[in-house]
Amino acid sequence: MEALDYHAEERRKAEFDVEEMKIVWAGSRQAYEISDRVARLVASDPVFRKDNRTMLSRKDLFKDTLRKAAHAWKRIIELRLSEEEASKLRFFVDQPVFTDLHWGMFIPAIKGQGNEEQQQKWLPMAYKMQIIGCYAQTELGHGSNVQGLETTATFDPETDEFVIHSPTLTSSKWWPGGLGKVSTHALVYARLITDGQDHGVHGFIVQLRSLDDHLPLPGITVGDIGMKFGSGAYNSMDNGVLRFDHVRIPRDQMLMGVSQVTREGKFMQSDVPRQLVYGTMVYVRQKIVSDASCALSRAVCIATRYSAVRRQFGAHNGGPETQVIDYKTQQSRLFPLLASAYAFRFVGEWLKWLYTDVTQRLQANDFSTLPEVHACTAGLKSVTTTATADAIEECRKLCGGHGYLSSSGLPELFAVYVPACTYEGDNVVLLLQVARFLMKTVSQLGSGKKPVGTIAYMGQSEHLLQCRCEVERAEDWLKPNVILEAFEARAARMSVTCAKNLNNFPNQEEGFAQLATDLAEAAVAHVQLIIVSKFIEKLQQDIPGKGVKRQLEILFNVYALSLLHKHLGDFVASSCITPKQGALANEQLRLLYSQVRPNAIALVDAFNYTDHYLGSVLGRYDGNVYPKLYEEAWKDPLNETVVPDGYHEYIRPILKQHIRVARL
Amino acid sequence: MEALDYHAEERRKAEFDVEEMKIVWAGSRQAYEISDRVARLVASDPVFRKDNRTMLSRKDLFKDTLRKAAHAWKRIIELRLSEEEASKLRFFVDQPVFTDLHWGMFIPAIKGQGNEEQQQKWLPMAYKMQIIGCYAQTELGHGSNVQGLETTATFDPETDEFVIHSPTLTSSKWWPGGLGKVSTHALVYARLITDGQDHGVHGFIVQLRSLDDHLPLPGITVGDIGMKFGSGAYNSMDNGVLRFDHVRIPRDQMLMGVSQVTREGKFMQSDVPRQLVYGTMVYVRQKIVSDASCALSRAVCIATRYSAVRRQFGAHNGGPETQVIDYKTQQSRLFPLLASAYAFRFVGEWLKWLYTDVTQRLQANDFSTLPEVHACTAGLKSVTTTATADAIEECRKLCGGHGYLSSSGLPELFAVYVPACTYEGDNVVLLLQVARFLMKTVSQLGSGKKPVGTIAYMGQSEHLLQCRCEVERAEDWLKPNVILEAFEARAARMSVTCAKNLNNFPNQEEGFAQLATDLAEAAVAHVQLIIVSKFIEKLQQDIPGKGVKRQLEILFNVYALSLLHKHLGDFVASSCITPKQGALANEQLRLLYSQVRPNAIALVDAFNYTDHYLGSVLGRYDGNVYPKLYEEAWKDPLNETVVPDGYHEYIRPILKQHIRVARL
Repeated sequence: MEALDYHAEERRKAEFDVEEMKIVWAGSRQAYEISDRVARLVASDPVFRKDNRTMLSRKDLFKDTLRKAAHAWKRIIELRLSEEEASKLRFFVDQPVFTDLHWGMFIPAIKGQGNEEQQQKWLPMAYKMQIIGCYAQTELGHGSNVQGLETTATFDPETDEFVIHSPTLTSSKWWPGGLGKVSTHALVYARLITDGQDHGVHGFIVQLRSLDDHLPLPGITVGDIGMKFGSGAYNSMDNGVLRFDHVRIPRDQMLMGVSQVTREGKFMQSDVPRQLVYGTMVYVRQKIVSDASCALSRAVCIATRYSAVRRQFGAHNGGPETQVIDYKTQQSRLFPLLASAYAFRFVGEWLKWLYTDVTQRLQANDFSTLPEVHACTAGLKSVTTTATADAIEECRKLCGGHGYLSSSGLPELFAVYVPACTYEGDNVVLLLQVARFLMKTVSQLGSGKKPVGTIAYMGQSEHLLQCRCEVERAEDWLKPNVILEAFEARAARMSVTCAKNLNNFPNQEEGFAQLATDLAEAAVAHVQLIIVSKFIEKLQQDIPGKGVKRQLEILFNVYALSLLHKHLGDFVASSCITPKQGALANEQLRLLYSQVRPNAIALVDAFNYTDHYLGSVLGRYDGNVYPKLYEEAWKDPLNETVVPDGYHEYIRPILKQHIRVARL
Repeated sequence: MEALDYHAEERRKAEFDVEEMKIVWAGSRQAYEISDRVARLVASDPVFRKDNRTMLSRKDLFKDTLRKAAHAWKRIIELRLSEEEASKLRFFVDQPVFTDLHWGMFIPAIKGQGNEEQQQKWLPMAYKMQIIGCYAQTELGHGSNVQGLETTATFDPETDEFVIHSPTLTSSKWWPGGLGKVSTHALVYARLITDGQDHGVHGFIVQLRSLDDHLPLPGITVGDIGMKFGSGAYNSMDNGVLRFDHVRIPRDQMLMGVSQVTREGKFMQSDVPRQLVYGTMVYVRQKIVSDASCALSRAVCIATRYSAVRRQFGAHNGGPETQVIDYKTQQSRLFPLLASAYAFRFVGEWLKWLYTDVTQRLQANDFSTLPEVHACTAGLKSVTTTATADAIEECRKLCGGHGYLSSSGLPELFAVYVPACTYEGDNVVLLLQVARFLMKTVSQLGSGKKPVGTIAYMGQSEHLLQCRCEVERAEDWLKPNVILEAFEARAARMSVTCAKNLNNFPNQEEGFAQLATDLAEAAVAHVQLIIVSKFIEKLQQDIPGKGVKRQLEILFNVYALSLLHKHLGDFVASSCITPKQGALANEQLRLLYSQVRPNAIALVDAFNYTDHYLGSVLGRYDGNVYPKLYEEAWKDPLNETVVPDGYHEYIRPILKQHIRVARL
């Protein structure tokens, strides 16, 4: 018997080799195979079930999460999984948990900021999880402004210890994941004070809880900061609050990879260049961009599949109604997001390369590309996470009313994703950092210093400030070079205009503050250009598989032209294109949507997500949506009894008009 | 001792009379007084406490909601509240509950669609809540396409009954609020079938549950559809699923105000014009627009107050850091939303007038304004709810990391608000209805038929298609007439362009399908113009109170110019304004933000929301944010024990490396 597949006909329509596209999406055949194997492993394990997650109370959800974390660790050991496989397994378990911070922040920070001795002492324990660590930086009163943190670490030369202290309420550590209930240790960021002098913020390894009974150590107040956005979602994580009352730690628990405090209390900068920390930063941001493409593709997969199942209006002569995916309004909202998922995937892949490149350069004491790399990663983090958060909600709306049900998976996906816009750098703050770099680049244009990497296009600013877009017919907009030049011209012109306007202010800083919004928009234009150009580079690679490259070309055009339409004001107001050319782009976009349409289901199949990972009745691979929605409904705790708890106290008295006497 | 007020200085800065602005916001002194009194009543009643709502399990939340509904009913009776006061009380209780549907849909539908006899029979019971009703229209397979509903009501002339039946799974009623666990009766929309003939969808009163023991009656399967977006939020409502297995009801339970079925089974249209149902529609949409201004103002109030408390960066010589509300990036995101709250409030007020106007016209058999009224209310519903949903999330992001905490109130506000984009007409479907009206208007321009009401500007399309914006300096953008003409020109040109492009298609319907996205954008332009023009009309009224009118003028300019900036592509591509004029608008906008800044706190104080209603630690009136955030955290159930439940099973075995042997 053939398996039920309501999407079978859609899948037959595909004009390309889906299996090959899966490899393109995964990055390599090997990556695809690992990912596929681990995803199935997780999906088939009943402990990793997550379909009831949004119904659990906070305590039950948290306990369920601890159980999954322990089980994941057990499976990792039993199956002798590689580091990559273990990380994939945690990814597919798909539930925020303390191990995310232990592996993703605590260990990398010790690696990056500890000296050799410290690494030898702490890393083996951390790798074996004999200690569990978190990353305690953010405070109640300080997030973005790390240099404003208030927690103090005062050196006491008499005992050779640091005294860690929370001098104010706002200095309470606040937000660190894994802190609230689990971590035994924390990497605490505090102001280093020696001999009355403040040396700024440094990292310290502080034990928080007894390894015997898990009770907080003396002087430490620690707990969970409470419910967060959504049901399920990040509530599985024990984001925590932490206060210190003169807690003492040995001197060697300050991370001394970059700076040191000697036995005598002398503060010393190491000869290791401070810039080394940028390596970690690039790594973390690369991870965030890759996560963005995952979250976005997941939402798009759900919305695309459901749009092919859902029918509404348009029945002729008693025939079936129209699939909503056939409506241009649906396509013009959905397909640009599908294209963005691929675009973010490819720029994320490139960031992986950039990380290796930067690491090698740093090791060779070559810091020349750092400003450009910093701006580019900051910008990509900001633009991709903002776009992804918006896109998940748009996908939810594209699923109509049913997208509002938890069983659609989209509410939880949104709630769990949105903090990405704030953590690791608030997205607006990051854009302003990009803008500073852009303004600096513009100001140096005459100096003979040649812009490199993602900002190289500024070297042709003379051309870009005066070039005319040559599009005459809609199909001219299919040429990558035409698109690239339009995006380069827009980015260059917006930056140069900002720089000119800045000059109208007597004080540069005041100008920067006043023009911050324009500057942020110029930064977005720059970052979108990076994504567009990396997509083009991808297309220039050798891409095997029947029709695969063709699909990517279509998606590239959809991505670029939908951006152009969305930011039409930028392009037209800066005279990069004429209104007529804008209309032609729009016309071409419509034609492109028709080309995406028959391939839409296959293009989301290429993400190769299991139904377990998707966690959505609407996005089921087999499209069997309605019976399953109906089935899911009855699992709600409210349906455990036919007559609801509270009927006798609160409903019956109303109906029977006993309301005046009933005690409520 | 003076009460703590961290915002005291901000409040002193205000350049206008806040008390007078409160009256402007409320609509009248009387409305203000009622609202103020009822809000305090609710806030001071411990039963209406809601600060623990997001931590409750579904069942506990639902029982808590039943308790509040019963208590609200008790207070309404005890205090002999008027209909307006009772409705305000339910509003301030601020928790979705079955009574919303009973009062807001069930009763109005019987009033609007029942004949006199039916009204006399059912309304008194409903008013006393001896029966509780819901509105069962949407089905699992049909939402927007009401005419596609599948539930059948087949007349059986032998017994003089209708047989209500769910012929398919997708015909299950799905979503109706109050249906899942509470309602005793439902207004069921079903296909009327007499003598084998389908007469389309009509309403039927069907009893669902026994009035004795609340058990579902024979043939009825009913339950809750499960968890929805967020914690707390709409999970207090028992949105339900309902299936009928040949359920019989007497013939007189078909709502016969507009059509009838006789004893012999003959279907008859009444002589009452069908258009009467439009009255209800205008009423419901007017309510939705008014709710949008409430939800938006609430989010803006929280974000504005917190932006004045939060400080980050910019400390000079050890002084305090800069309030984030002083950053232009914060202002350019926040102040347009503040202005939108006022704009939506005023257009909502005008809709109230429109409702009375339409009602009077309908009673006088004047149906001439109906198409315009339909387009205008559909468009306003769509544009204001979309903008509000986006704005709430933007306000949450404006609160940085802490906006992600449930105690900020914003996650729940977002989750509870977003369905407004889907219910009572999906927002995109509604825009296309507006577009159809616009295209019809354009096509009739030559016919001598004069456009009236909100579409009257199309009468000057010749002028609007060729006029040139006369702005030369930034301050020229302060003139309402200049703004109005620019918005009129944009709307007219976009409509006319769409109409021209439609003509390129041999088939008008095919053209409409292909150009749907452009048409929707033209509809948005038309609706934004309506909001702008109603704001201008408000400014032309006599507005007392020191400085109040001045503030409204500033807000108007912020609203209009920020829209212009956001949709710059529309304005420039259609040559309504030049790029240079766009830049001047932007410049003026910056100056306007500086004028809003000192008044920002007072402008949100004017909404007169109690801390209870706001439900946000970040938005507290007194600004005492950090100590209260800290206090709230400890109330989370996870903090009931120091060592979390699950430690012994799932954490200790990892730390102690018993993982290989432990059974997980």
